[in-house]
Amino acid sequence: PKVVVLPGDGIGPEVCASAVEVLQKVAPDVQLEYHLLGGGAYDQTGSPFPDATREAVLNCDAVLLGTVGGAQNSPWNSLPRPLRPESGLLQLRKALGVYANLRPVKVMPGLESLSPLREDLAKQVDVLIVRELLGGAYFDPRRAIEGDSAYNTIGYSKAEVDRVARVAFEAAKTRKGEVTSVDKANVLEVSELWRGVVQHLHDTEYPDIKLEHEYVDSVAMLLVKTPGRYDVIVTENLFGDILSDLAAVIPGSLGVMPSASLGDGPGLYEPIHGSAPDIAGKGIANPSGTILSVAMLLRHSLGRDAEAKRIEDAVQAALTEVRTPDLGGKGTTQELGAAVLAML
Amino acid sequence: PKVVVLPGDGIGPEVCASAVEVLQKVAPDVQLEYHLLGGGAYDQTGSPFPDATREAVLNCDAVLLGTVGGAQNSPWNSLPRPLRPESGLLQLRKALGVYANLRPVKVMPGLESLSPLREDLAKQVDVLIVRELLGGAYFDPRRAIEGDSAYNTIGYSKAEVDRVARVAFEAAKTRKGEVTSVDKANVLEVSELWRGVVQHLHDTEYPDIKLEHEYVDSVAMLLVKTPGRYDVIVTENLFGDILSDLAAVIPGSLGVMPSASLGDGPGLYEPIHGSAPDIAGKGIANPSGTILSVAMLLRHSLGRDAEAKRIEDAVQAALTEVRTPDLGGKGTTQELGAAVLAML
Ligand SMILES: CC(C)[C@H](C(=O)O)[C@@H](O)C(=O)O
Ligand SMILES: CC(C)[C@H](C(=O)O)[C@@H](O)C(=O)O
Repeated sequence: PKVVVLPGDGIGPEVCASAVEVLQKVAPDVQLEYHLLGGGAYDQTGSPFPDATREAVLNCDAVLLGTVGGAQNSPWNSLPRPLRPESGLLQLRKALGVYANLRPVKVMPGLESLSPLREDLAKQVDVLIVRELLGGAYFDPRRAIEGDSAYNTIGYSKAEVDRVARVAFEAAKTRKGEVTSVDKANVLEVSELWRGVVQHLHDTEYPDIKLEHEYVDSVAMLLVKTPGRYDVIVTENLFGDILSDLAAVIPGSLGVMPSASLGDGPGLYEPIHGSAPDIAGKGIANPSGTILSVAMLLRHSLGRDAEAKRIEDAVQAALTEVRTPDLGGKGTTQELGAAVLAML
Repeated sequence: PKVVVLPGDGIGPEVCASAVEVLQKVAPDVQLEYHLLGGGAYDQTGSPFPDATREAVLNCDAVLLGTVGGAQNSPWNSLPRPLRPESGLLQLRKALGVYANLRPVKVMPGLESLSPLREDLAKQVDVLIVRELLGGAYFDPRRAIEGDSAYNTIGYSKAEVDRVARVAFEAAKTRKGEVTSVDKANVLEVSELWRGVVQHLHDTEYPDIKLEHEYVDSVAMLLVKTPGRYDVIVTENLFGDILSDLAAVIPGSLGVMPSASLGDGPGLYEPIHGSAPDIAGKGIANPSGTILSVAMLLRHSLGRDAEAKRIEDAVQAALTEVRTPDLGGKGTTQELGAAVLAML
């Protein structure tokens, strides 16, 4: 099998290097191919998503991504929108057709005290956020700045809602069997459509899953107040962007959070933390999120569940010995990576 | 001066009754007029925002609102959208032209332990959220369900952004002098317009205020992780709906949070908690949020700052003696209301 690695910007190259060592150790038969994405890609080729990258990701089994983007004052941010690093990421998602972004959030045993929440609440968090990734305001062509006003459109078709809801129901089967669909149906028509499709799919194909519909403002509140109440959350792109970042901060250790973006072709795997330009190149970034993304890659794209589990156990064990600064320790990327390798 | 009281649905009538007693005590010259809004209004008149209510609110100095809406399975929720309780509230906001929703969030001394956050973090929270209340997807007429798809539009004009940003900058002058404008300018054109207008207003009229622009996903994260970093947050309607509820849960005592919605005419004052149909009629709802909304009413609509302050101090003192169940106590609405009156 072939995996395309896109180290990207900021701390991306460092965390990818660690993660690739782990991948090579547990799956030595995997072929690797490196390509450019983001700000660095723009600097070298004039595009944040060069043709060579597009070509490569469309002809592989899975994509491992570091991070993209620069500091707030980076010249990249003054480029026309389609040339910015983030646009490279959006184009990559679109090219791969990855419509479902999966972000499992839970507190690792031993790291509870890092949570901004009270420990008894933090311990309860074990939620999978399924975010629709190719629809809504992100990609809708009905958008413009026109003179003194501007607009974007949140559009969804029934088919777009159905396919991502299906991912959520299937995931719930392997967990507690509960799905919370999040919308703003008391105000938005597009949410009314969303709610109807999710309910219909539930009633016709997943009657045994417990389904709740909740409003996005209420979920933002309850994720903090009683985080243990959620099993699987499914929601549209922009709400998912907000809620998945919110959920991710609860365990207090953003650096250990992985994600998978799935569609009908190759999957895309990346840590959820950003490019952290302030610590880039210092060798102190936490590689755990990227290493755990490799575990998701093995599970979802290569069907190697046992290897995925081995990596997850190794990361958990390694974190009892080495902690990077984001976890309150003094360990380096290299040391934590080596500890994971040693546990394998 | 004349204040229109709209008790509304659920616990609205109970908390309004307490708040009105406080208003009458500190401002006996205020004339009161009661009207219908929400589900109860629909049941009695066929409209959630009856003409008599419209007429009254347009001819007064300020409006005090309880809450609107029923339980999730309430028949009100199956009515056509314009007849639902929430629609009454949206029509009321529109009729009053209240474009800036102000929600001050801070932890009351003594209530820190109720926060879902660790106490050291909870103590730092002292943020004013200024939410744009009449624009964006809530009111944009470009909206529909059409066959197998649906859409809503997030539209803003420069004038709409300017007037609410002004409220935020003015508020910051009376606080720490810091404004964080929240958008998703890395993805949305409407956010790009938003950011430009806020920056321009800052540079031309409020150069001494410290202005930051942050992305909505990042703010959702940082409000939980380092809540002390924010002074005034200003954002568009839907982001504001989500972030203000999120912020409100941090002190752990939703029941004590007030809000003011301001425009060029009469202001609208309401607690931020919902209609809580599960405890309606039991006499155990916390009236503090509504009583503190009366304080905001006195300050912003009647210019009676001293009375506002007296009420705020009285609520704080009363809460050391009586706590309703939402604060972990056994006090009743009536007892807490009486304690506030006694402190005045
Ligand atoms: C960088 C940005 C475009 C992106 C998004 O909003 O999707 C990021 O926030 C994410 O969640 O992956
Ligand atoms: C009831 C609903 C329409 C309303 C809103 O979204 O504005 C509520 O959530 C609020 O924040 O006041």
